[in-house]
Amino acid sequence: MTYSTLFFDDYSEGAHPRILEALSRTNFQQDRGYGRDFFTQEATRLIREKINQPQAAIHFVATGTQANLISIASILRPYESVIATHEGHIAVHETGAIEATGHKVNLVPSVAGKMTPESIEIILAEHIDEHMVRPRLLYISQATEVGTIYTKKELQDLYEFAQRHGLYLFIDGARLGTALTSPQSDLTLEEIAMYADFFYIGGTKNGALLGEALVVLNPQLQDHLRYHIKQRGALMAKTRVITTGFMELFQDDLYFQNARHANAMAQKLALGIEAVGYELAQPFATNQIFPILPNRVIEELEKKYGFYRWLADSAPGHSTIRLVTSWATREEALEAFLHDLVALRSP
Amino acid sequence: MTYSTLFFDDYSEGAHPRILEALSRTNFQQDRGYGRDFFTQEATRLIREKINQPQAAIHFVATGTQANLISIASILRPYESVIATHEGHIAVHETGAIEATGHKVNLVPSVAGKMTPESIEIILAEHIDEHMVRPRLLYISQATEVGTIYTKKELQDLYEFAQRHGLYLFIDGARLGTALTSPQSDLTLEEIAMYADFFYIGGTKNGALLGEALVVLNPQLQDHLRYHIKQRGALMAKTRVITTGFMELFQDDLYFQNARHANAMAQKLALGIEAVGYELAQPFATNQIFPILPNRVIEELEKKYGFYRWLADSAPGHSTIRLVTSWATREEALEAFLHDLVALRSP
Amino acid sequence: MTYSTLFFDDYSEGAHPRILEALSRTNFQQDRGYGRDFFTQEATRLIREKINQPQAAIHFVATGTQANLISIASILRPYESVIATHEGHIAVHETGAIEATGHKVNLVPSVAGKMTPESIEIILAEHIDEHMVRPRLLYISQATEVGTIYTKKELQDLYEFAQRHGLYLFIDGARLGTALTSPQSDLTLEEIAMYADFFYIGGTKNGALLGEALVVLNPQLQDHLRYHIKQRGALMAKTRVITTGFMELFQDDLYFQNARHANAMAQKLALGIEAVGYELAQPFATNQIFPILPNRVIEELEKKYGFYRWLADSAPGHSTIRLVTSWATREEALEAFLHDLVALRSP
Amino acid sequence: MTYSTLFFDDYSEGAHPRILEALSRTNFQQDRGYGRDFFTQEATRLIREKINQPQAAIHFVATGTQANLISIASILRPYESVIATHEGHIAVHETGAIEATGHKVNLVPSVAGKMTPESIEIILAEHIDEHMVRPRLLYISQATEVGTIYTKKELQDLYEFAQRHGLYLFIDGARLGTALTSPQSDLTLEEIAMYADFFYIGGTKNGALLGEALVVLNPQLQDHLRYHIKQRGALMAKTRVITTGFMELFQDDLYFQNARHANAMAQKLALGIEAVGYELAQPFATNQIFPILPNRVIEELEKKYGFYRWLADSAPGHSTIRLVTSWATREEALEAFLHDLVALRSP
Repeated sequence: MTYSTLFFDDYSEGAHPRILEALSRTNFQQDRGYGRDFFTQEATRLIREKINQPQAAIHFVATGTQANLISIASILRPYESVIATHEGHIAVHETGAIEATGHKVNLVPSVAGKMTPESIEIILAEHIDEHMVRPRLLYISQATEVGTIYTKKELQDLYEFAQRHGLYLFIDGARLGTALTSPQSDLTLEEIAMYADFFYIGGTKNGALLGEALVVLNPQLQDHLRYHIKQRGALMAKTRVITTGFMELFQDDLYFQNARHANAMAQKLALGIEAVGYELAQPFATNQIFPILPNRVIEELEKKYGFYRWLADSAPGHSTIRLVTSWATREEALEAFLHDLVALRSP
Repeated sequence: MTYSTLFFDDYSEGAHPRILEALSRTNFQQDRGYGRDFFTQEATRLIREKINQPQAAIHFVATGTQANLISIASILRPYESVIATHEGHIAVHETGAIEATGHKVNLVPSVAGKMTPESIEIILAEHIDEHMVRPRLLYISQATEVGTIYTKKELQDLYEFAQRHGLYLFIDGARLGTALTSPQSDLTLEEIAMYADFFYIGGTKNGALLGEALVVLNPQLQDHLRYHIKQRGALMAKTRVITTGFMELFQDDLYFQNARHANAMAQKLALGIEAVGYELAQPFATNQIFPILPNRVIEELEKKYGFYRWLADSAPGHSTIRLVTSWATREEALEAFLHDLVALRSP
Repeated sequence: MTYSTLFFDDYSEGAHPRILEALSRTNFQQDRGYGRDFFTQEATRLIREKINQPQAAIHFVATGTQANLISIASILRPYESVIATHEGHIAVHETGAIEATGHKVNLVPSVAGKMTPESIEIILAEHIDEHMVRPRLLYISQATEVGTIYTKKELQDLYEFAQRHGLYLFIDGARLGTALTSPQSDLTLEEIAMYADFFYIGGTKNGALLGEALVVLNPQLQDHLRYHIKQRGALMAKTRVITTGFMELFQDDLYFQNARHANAMAQKLALGIEAVGYELAQPFATNQIFPILPNRVIEELEKKYGFYRWLADSAPGHSTIRLVTSWATREEALEAFLHDLVALRSP
Repeated sequence: MTYSTLFFDDYSEGAHPRILEALSRTNFQQDRGYGRDFFTQEATRLIREKINQPQAAIHFVATGTQANLISIASILRPYESVIATHEGHIAVHETGAIEATGHKVNLVPSVAGKMTPESIEIILAEHIDEHMVRPRLLYISQATEVGTIYTKKELQDLYEFAQRHGLYLFIDGARLGTALTSPQSDLTLEEIAMYADFFYIGGTKNGALLGEALVVLNPQLQDHLRYHIKQRGALMAKTRVITTGFMELFQDDLYFQNARHANAMAQKLALGIEAVGYELAQPFATNQIFPILPNRVIEELEKKYGFYRWLADSAPGHSTIRLVTSWATREEALEAFLHDLVALRSP
């Protein structure tokens, strides 16, 4: 089926044109393989500068699942586990990638997609001897899997809780860009780096051709990471394919510009939908919105637009759909969508 | 250090310009994620056509180590092992990636980098009960890790041996391009697909931006491969970043053209070096040559050119170096190198 | 601390005296190692006879966790998962042993410790593509972790459900003896073998010195099990140490006699406690009872008897404790306990 | 087939009668599970005393493969490997148990079954960056897999070499008893504990019913071992079944007495065979001897005695067989064997 516009996700296009231009511009510049190249060093330098942590170790891998499994498997000892919310990406949508490295994922309920110290305390109280795994790491996502974001206070509290209990804190930043540029955000990238032991900056979903940047703040967790990365098949011969992109994204404001655009498009789309008279299933903070529409309208929209049904029949005759905007979403596409929505309104 | 030219490897540049152009041309064409896109379907179709196997399953991953570990871990049951030569890439240069998936690599000695039925027979005779792993898979590389290639007869023999003994045959094709286009080759890509259960076509080292194409011939080994790929972190949201490249490489002859160029450059370089009066440590078939040069000359060359010393002091006052050419090697670079070599000749 | 009697568990003593006698009697009878011995063949024959399944594969391992991890890891492919209740022994009390073999444990809520088709259906409906594991195996315990038992109807339903959905059913029989001899049981050992693909018969908790008997009914799951067992370190040089015990337990009715005694002792203890005027927190089916006692009484009892506090302050001034009886529990010990309980009753 | 006497191995009988007596004597003594019992504490105390290392951590597991895989997996980080000789038990005869925990076994050639610093140096020189595993642990067996033993000087040298290179040293002591009591031995158990980071004392092959005692000297390697043991299924509910045996073996000289007997029987058997006019294939130190006999004689002996053919046709018309004696070997059995050997001598 050919759609007019896709709202499935934030990776429906290639990359921000500046990245493709940079790849073309530097294409025949010969350099060393496996991350020993100029591009990787430069991307590393730029990220260290942005987070104001000159001692941070920075590594680049191709996918979010790689970022998660390598980080977590490198941190934990065999009998240790990672705590995630029941919606956590590693808990549900990575085909048991963490377990495939030998580690259990302990689940806690989330509040609006977020982990709370209270729920962790229950897990810790239950895991007291060698008949159970030893929880050692908190895994959270910013933005969360349901599109919400941690506030500065929430993140600080979680990090301090982790430190008090001998736990590490890891942040999955697949959508860190839209989280940090959300109108509701009171956190900066520099602060993220202050309240985490290890996190990653997602490129794939924010205009990079591919790639995620692992940022290891805690010196104890920096040990032999290139070995871990190679062993999991994630050390790329041409790391430059990733790092040329991160150079572009971080040598000025492009990373945040992309994310701000995605958020603004979501905002515009949400307001437009509400103006037509429909409601959102939940408040939103970033580039995912969840409108509740009549099933008849959804069926018509599906003929032209690509998106997921999120919750079938969430109200009588209505379902909740998910619309995702991105760095590449064009305003005209939104206008067309809203125009169609108006036209489909019941007479 | 800034070099005039690098002969370290065949991934010192970005990608063949046609691939970058294709990425730019299709950049804003929206499409589905995780390999459900047009580019991936088209690359799949083209490869099936080239190998004349419409039922082959084709998957795309970013790195050779991923290709190896996913293939091997998907084929073997927990107690089964893979047989490789003692020089095999999985045996030495992948940081225990295969073992990290739980499987032993049984080693056999190689003859000119190649595995022989005789050496496998010894392993099979030794592994007879449940106190030992059960060897189930042969892993070979074409071209081999030392730059030699299997002839059609050798490959056929190995495949028939494997079939007779209930073994699978997997071919690591990281450098399949230069193997098939070697002046010494009597094998076609179509024939490779006839004498293997599973192999991969290397893109990274033959002009692709990144990526390797897994080709699964044996229907029994096609089961649930997308699950395996996702679990190891290798399912890319924008698979198109890889498959746009494979579309370019296989929609005409570009894949082989790149490889032929690499081989021709190696040929030219070798002849030139011999013309200056130096010898090669071993005959070569593809794009790696191993000249023996005076240590004094090597030291001078290292000031301008990037390459590896292969075997220090392989002869009195001499060492063996490795020079690798690629799809991107310019003739002028070779001429400059040979010119310098002449100039460095002892008076 | 020296206790008068332990009610901690059903493995506080050595073994039924007949087993020690058999070990002594046969001690100098030389035989082959690693399960190729007479004792193991004989125990195998006896179990096959009792379950009326001459084609069943039978293996013997030392511990319940070994039985679970070997069975599950031998059944599943890397991307497949096992479903357990949130109380399931493998989910909580085996230190991530299943995950250490690479597999996810999907959790479902239990009803009185038991798994229901309804809850599995939800899991199946959620796991639909390669971004998630593929649930392939149901893990249940008979008796359950909370001492309840599946009825024949419940087990049949679960097994048929499993068959309809392409799932395997595995039964952890660590306490199979007390389950089958429970006054509430309507199942026989032969029927257990009819409604499972794979189960094990627990010896450790029912009077054996050590050991569990794996029973593999489904021919597809019998493949190469000795390799799996050896690889996990569970193939014992002197398997006879386990199988001499199983010979004794199954050459007549001793296995069931032991279990019936444990159940009868629990019954007697429960009735006695109720007669004193206390309640049980939940109905019981086997050899674990959960009385609710005043905290003051518990403190006094703890000076003489060994048992676990199960739920602190489950009612004002009261807590729930767990008392476990076994094949070795002496009636006099119960009488002494009940006598003390009466004496401790508030004036 | 019913044999007169088995010379297959040193675990053809049950256990030393004193151990069975101790089990019977203490059978109804109630105690805590999972190694929290008196027997385990007492066995721990006795072993610490014998090795004169009050800080050593001692754990008990059922099999040698468990001892090896738990120790090695607990010591290594994911990218680290263990070095073994090509005859090493973990390298050949444990069905890839080490690889199943994710770790590569690097092979070195042995000299008379023993590892030398020279061969390790070659491995270390080859493993220099993240494309290869990082060797971190030496695995040796005392006695070795071919029945030889390390001298004090050899062990000291290896241990000092390990310390200089940041490697740990682990000793597989499945046959430590016969090694230490060999007429050729100049090492004591106390000295073994001085020149190793971690080792185990084999019970199964030296008169115990079952079990091996892990001894962890290096405090850095003592961390959370009970978790590792539980995760691998090796924490036994009735650890007393193992530790009652170790109490008996170490509360006086029984462990060494058993081993001395096995060695003396091998000595007697070897001298007898040589007296008949046959040669041994190699010098022996412990309880395994390798006579070279005419094939005709072997065929006749096989009708009455159980033993393995080691090397078929090792000389024209002759083969090498292996005869193993044990703590339980009776002198009369040897005399009968030698008597038959004389009778079978060619006229």
